[in-house]
Amino acid sequence: MITSAEQKAARKRAAQMIAESGIRITEEEKNRIEVVDFGLSHLEIEGVQVLTLVQTDRISVKVLALLPNQTEPEHWHPPVGDDPGKEETIRVVSGTVYFYVQGENTFKQGFLVKGKKKHYTMMHEIILKPGDQITFQPGEKHWFQTLDEGAVMYSFSSVARDALDQFTDPNIVRTVKVVDE
Amino acid sequence: MITSAEQKAARKRAAQMIAESGIRITEEEKNRIEVVDFGLSHLEIEGVQVLTLVQTDRISVKVLALLPNQTEPEHWHPPVGDDPGKEETIRVVSGTVYFYVQGENTFKQGFLVKGKKKHYTMMHEIILKPGDQITFQPGEKHWFQTLDEGAVMYSFSSVARDALDQFTDPNIVRTVKVVDE
Repeated sequence: MITSAEQKAARKRAAQMIAESGIRITEEEKNRIEVVDFGLSHLEIEGVQVLTLVQTDRISVKVLALLPNQTEPEHWHPPVGDDPGKEETIRVVSGTVYFYVQGENTFKQGFLVKGKKKHYTMMHEIILKPGDQITFQPGEKHWFQTLDEGAVMYSFSSVARDALDQFTDPNIVRTVKVVDE
Repeated sequence: MITSAEQKAARKRAAQMIAESGIRITEEEKNRIEVVDFGLSHLEIEGVQVLTLVQTDRISVKVLALLPNQTEPEHWHPPVGDDPGKEETIRVVSGTVYFYVQGENTFKQGFLVKGKKKHYTMMHEIILKPGDQITFQPGEKHWFQTLDEGAVMYSFSSVARDALDQFTDPNIVRTVKVVDE
């Protein structure tokens, strides 16, 4: 869970980072940035801020903001009914993003979240800068993080069903509980 | 047809407009901006500049740049095999875009391309500014244009098969012929 104060502060930081990245969003959009703690209750360590621009039953477009040193936990997009699973291209707009995917262990520049080693199994490092992009096929496990500067990116995908994403860490729940202090 | 000099000049102007809109693209991307005259050989009147960022068999993401007073001709996205047709959301990044769709005739701020009245049949005007977006369902006829400032926008869609788009103007061909002067 996160507190409503945490939610508000993270939303504000994300809106600021998005504006600085050059992406123009409306006031209405700023106010509906989702602050996602994956049910882990330590937002600044594992979490992500998400603004959904397009969500239909065919495609999804989101802006993702990662705060400095924030990690989006390892996950994959499983098949759902007739859908083979979400195919996703992430394109970096500002900052540097450290992605970890299947392949030879080249883990070097990123860091493992303390005490979570067994929930991060992909160790092939791909570092993306603004204008770079990477495509994940359905089922491909991935996680990503930023270092001190944070990052803003687009996620372009086939239909997104976030609630059905699967995570290596069994403690994760995709619904966010917000409590008043 | 367009000349290679026209293609080069339009590509350069589009790259400049895209950069000024705040969208960061790589050098490689600048050099592969498509300059589309729809086979009408008067690019600055009817045409569009297109940079494809994502093109898979499920989704497509493009950056569209319209030069000042340039019009993208009326067209629609038909069904193709099992696909009901392209669903497309256009989001304006810079400039003002005048869209024309099915509905009551509210045509006011835009202009009709000279001598082309019968090839522009949608007259319901929707004016979008940066941060605004519009979604077209498969089969929905639409055309759009800019006035003096030009515009840059994203097109987020299900799979794009540009060559199969249908146009009201029977003179249009979607393949571009480039000739050396």
